[in-house]
Amino acid sequence: MESLLSKIRPRVFQCLHRTSVLLRRSHSGSSQNDAAAAAASTEPRAFKHTLLVSRLYQPSSLRDMGLDNQLPGEMTCKSQRLMRQAGLIHPSNPGCYYYLPAMVRSMEKLMRVIDQEMQLIGGQKIDMPSLCSAELWKASERWDLMGNELLRLKDRHEHDYCLAPTHEEAVTTLIAHQTSLSYRQLPLLLYQITRKFRDELKPKFGLLRGREFYMKDMYSFDVSEESAVQTYESVCEAYTRLFKRLGLHCVQVQADTGNIGGKLSHEFQLPAEIGEDRLLVCGSCSFSANLETVTSDRSDCPQCKTGTMVESRGIEVGHTFYLGKKYSDVFNATFSNAQGKYSVAEMGCYGLGVTRIVAAAIEVMSTKERICWPGLIAPYQVCVIPPKKGSKEDKAAVLAEELVHTLGETLPGLRGEVVLDDRTQMTIGKRLKDANKLGYPYVVVVGNGALEETPSYEVICQQTGDKMFLSKDGLLDLLVRVETV
Amino acid sequence: MESLLSKIRPRVFQCLHRTSVLLRRSHSGSSQNDAAAAAASTEPRAFKHTLLVSRLYQPSSLRDMGLDNQLPGEMTCKSQRLMRQAGLIHPSNPGCYYYLPAMVRSMEKLMRVIDQEMQLIGGQKIDMPSLCSAELWKASERWDLMGNELLRLKDRHEHDYCLAPTHEEAVTTLIAHQTSLSYRQLPLLLYQITRKFRDELKPKFGLLRGREFYMKDMYSFDVSEESAVQTYESVCEAYTRLFKRLGLHCVQVQADTGNIGGKLSHEFQLPAEIGEDRLLVCGSCSFSANLETVTSDRSDCPQCKTGTMVESRGIEVGHTFYLGKKYSDVFNATFSNAQGKYSVAEMGCYGLGVTRIVAAAIEVMSTKERICWPGLIAPYQVCVIPPKKGSKEDKAAVLAEELVHTLGETLPGLRGEVVLDDRTQMTIGKRLKDANKLGYPYVVVVGNGALEETPSYEVICQQTGDKMFLSKDGLLDLLVRVETV
Repeated sequence: MESLLSKIRPRVFQCLHRTSVLLRRSHSGSSQNDAAAAAASTEPRAFKHTLLVSRLYQPSSLRDMGLDNQLPGEMTCKSQRLMRQAGLIHPSNPGCYYYLPAMVRSMEKLMRVIDQEMQLIGGQKIDMPSLCSAELWKASERWDLMGNELLRLKDRHEHDYCLAPTHEEAVTTLIAHQTSLSYRQLPLLLYQITRKFRDELKPKFGLLRGREFYMKDMYSFDVSEESAVQTYESVCEAYTRLFKRLGLHCVQVQADTGNIGGKLSHEFQLPAEIGEDRLLVCGSCSFSANLETVTSDRSDCPQCKTGTMVESRGIEVGHTFYLGKKYSDVFNATFSNAQGKYSVAEMGCYGLGVTRIVAAAIEVMSTKERICWPGLIAPYQVCVIPPKKGSKEDKAAVLAEELVHTLGETLPGLRGEVVLDDRTQMTIGKRLKDANKLGYPYVVVVGNGALEETPSYEVICQQTGDKMFLSKDGLLDLLVRVETV
Repeated sequence: MESLLSKIRPRVFQCLHRTSVLLRRSHSGSSQNDAAAAAASTEPRAFKHTLLVSRLYQPSSLRDMGLDNQLPGEMTCKSQRLMRQAGLIHPSNPGCYYYLPAMVRSMEKLMRVIDQEMQLIGGQKIDMPSLCSAELWKASERWDLMGNELLRLKDRHEHDYCLAPTHEEAVTTLIAHQTSLSYRQLPLLLYQITRKFRDELKPKFGLLRGREFYMKDMYSFDVSEESAVQTYESVCEAYTRLFKRLGLHCVQVQADTGNIGGKLSHEFQLPAEIGEDRLLVCGSCSFSANLETVTSDRSDCPQCKTGTMVESRGIEVGHTFYLGKKYSDVFNATFSNAQGKYSVAEMGCYGLGVTRIVAAAIEVMSTKERICWPGLIAPYQVCVIPPKKGSKEDKAAVLAEELVHTLGETLPGLRGEVVLDDRTQMTIGKRLKDANKLGYPYVVVVGNGALEETPSYEVICQQTGDKMFLSKDGLLDLLVRVETV
């Protein structure tokens, strides 16, 4: 045993030397030197540091935020409760939240998955102003149509603006400004992932219905209806792939076009009890529809005519619209066609609720007590728990630090994904409970087994509920397969 | 020659088969199959595709946007002109811009560099609402102090809000809500990179002074003044490192604390003719100051007493403030100290203008005709130009495609960083001119030399102005050293 420890100690020291970031500064000025030393090195510096739970601005540090300062009249649901309990979000104004560090990590991962899927079908990322001039919204007649949901303001010159909840007017104006757009450049798919605003009458269910939220909105421009429908379908397929990658079982339902307008529309609904949308799903064929769109007899399927329609509830996480020329006609968004003449573009628009997807996934996947994440967007993939200080396994603490270091060095995909729960004044049990609350996909307990001749680690897989004792190699074999983004 | 071509052809076909994304769709439905095939593959799909200039929503496609639709009364500068000419930005409302795809790429790269540097000193990323309640801003007395620069609005319940230009009030409230914050958790550094709003009287110079812009704002919480000053210094060092990585020669100058308040403040100024700030820089020692802060005799350096102060102009790209207890006292942001008693936290706040840094870098590095980027944040690193269609080097076109493919496969750092200028109806010269406008750090011309027995490629390095003829291996040797983020 002695010899094993002495063998690994030099490497452990190296590891500790590098943990300047989330280790508490000694107030003696040494951290500056650490940072300078790290900066002088040639390796990517940001990935070198051990992430310590005691220094993360969640979850334990936020444990006291519980539900004590719930906003008056706020309606809660499972995801909201769990997200606050784990220190993912904290309420600000009604319908507005602080997104805390673990939430930001999850959200940024989801944004990367969205980027991949949108770019795969040719989407190009842009970023449009939140301030939208009233003129544009009056031209589309939505200035009045949107009523109280639109947040309005005047600038210092008394000009009217709204905080855009969606950007059909803005993007169509952009295209209209480009006088030389050729049919050869179409289909053109432009998207953004930005903060949106909607003055909900009753914000509720945490991030599921807020007044400020992140949304991915894409807009397509095509030469013809045929081509536009093809683009529409490729976006629906991208959405289906995206939800599949997240392990979310979404239903694509026929939907109402609402005030966005257009000819064809689908919602991507995540079945859930607290869902605000009522769906009809056919028991025989693939047909499903938002109840709003079904005006006739609800019991028979309008598609296969034989199946019985079953009612269900869903959370809308995506929405697609084939718009035709509704906006391009108004703003004169044209391209030059094969004959060299101007022709009005066919449009589509496609939304994904980014913050809503995170919350909805937690809503449908979690139990009452613990968050379960789509693995791909879990804030951190692995939590390593060393023994309690002063316990008989105390000696294994260095092995835990060594393990965290090895995982980061050996598995590049896990860089920045492994945290060490260094709150060794707490029992393993209490820290396990905290780990469960935040829902790390993999929790590794470094206890007695690590001190045996063939060291073994207890691994708990959140998704399967499996508990296993693995050697270090076994653990590496398991974790190398973890998909990260 | 024949045999060389036949040898590479199968790989070229493979490469073309994969270019579903930014190739124009044939309107026959084949793109769906491509996408499905790509989706079925196990490799990361998003990186497989050749980026074609003809399909990028810039620069040529926006060439006609020139300066024809300049906003009335808008004051322009070099960076604004160059950024519009290259299709990086397009004006929306006064002081608001559409950020187009190449700009978004550059901005996201800069954000990644900022993330790295902030996390290296222990920064944890959060995201706070843009809507800030008037009560908070009245508590700090900034509701009145900010005057017309603050964009104000009422929600449907007639409650007053502002669109936050900065978040001292919001973040201090967050900390105040956490009743169990321990001295062991300090220093705590929270930052965000979000869109900010400021109703400038005269928005001008493109992204240098806008009404809507991206900013990184960090807030620190410390146990004591000594510790807070130490944190302050570590942030200044991080800023210095960041600008050094970008190749920008920033001056750190003593500054006024303005309406943010506090005891100590520095600006990071990028010397430039159009800079709106006037600086005094000592010729003998390291002292420099914003002219606003120098009330006494301006000719002698107040630090070394001997040096002569030289006046200069600068663009402010960063600002740091040691705030003391200005905000933490108002909002009661406390922690429990080593004696278990509540103590008010010492604060600092630190800003970096994200969109402004991109524009300022272009302003100081570019010539009148062409953009020169800090290499790390150039939208794309390499542009490959194949010969003109029908020219005598036409055969080399497949070699260009093959080259793009090889670069992506061989140099993982360049994935997604290499574009092919497939507009082969244009001469090489015209496309070179476009490439110069956008300022790719490396332009590779595949011409006659590529068809010789030992194929060679003409490489133009933007930063040095060097033109070289390199073999494929030589090219790979050169490009493997390109740093990307």
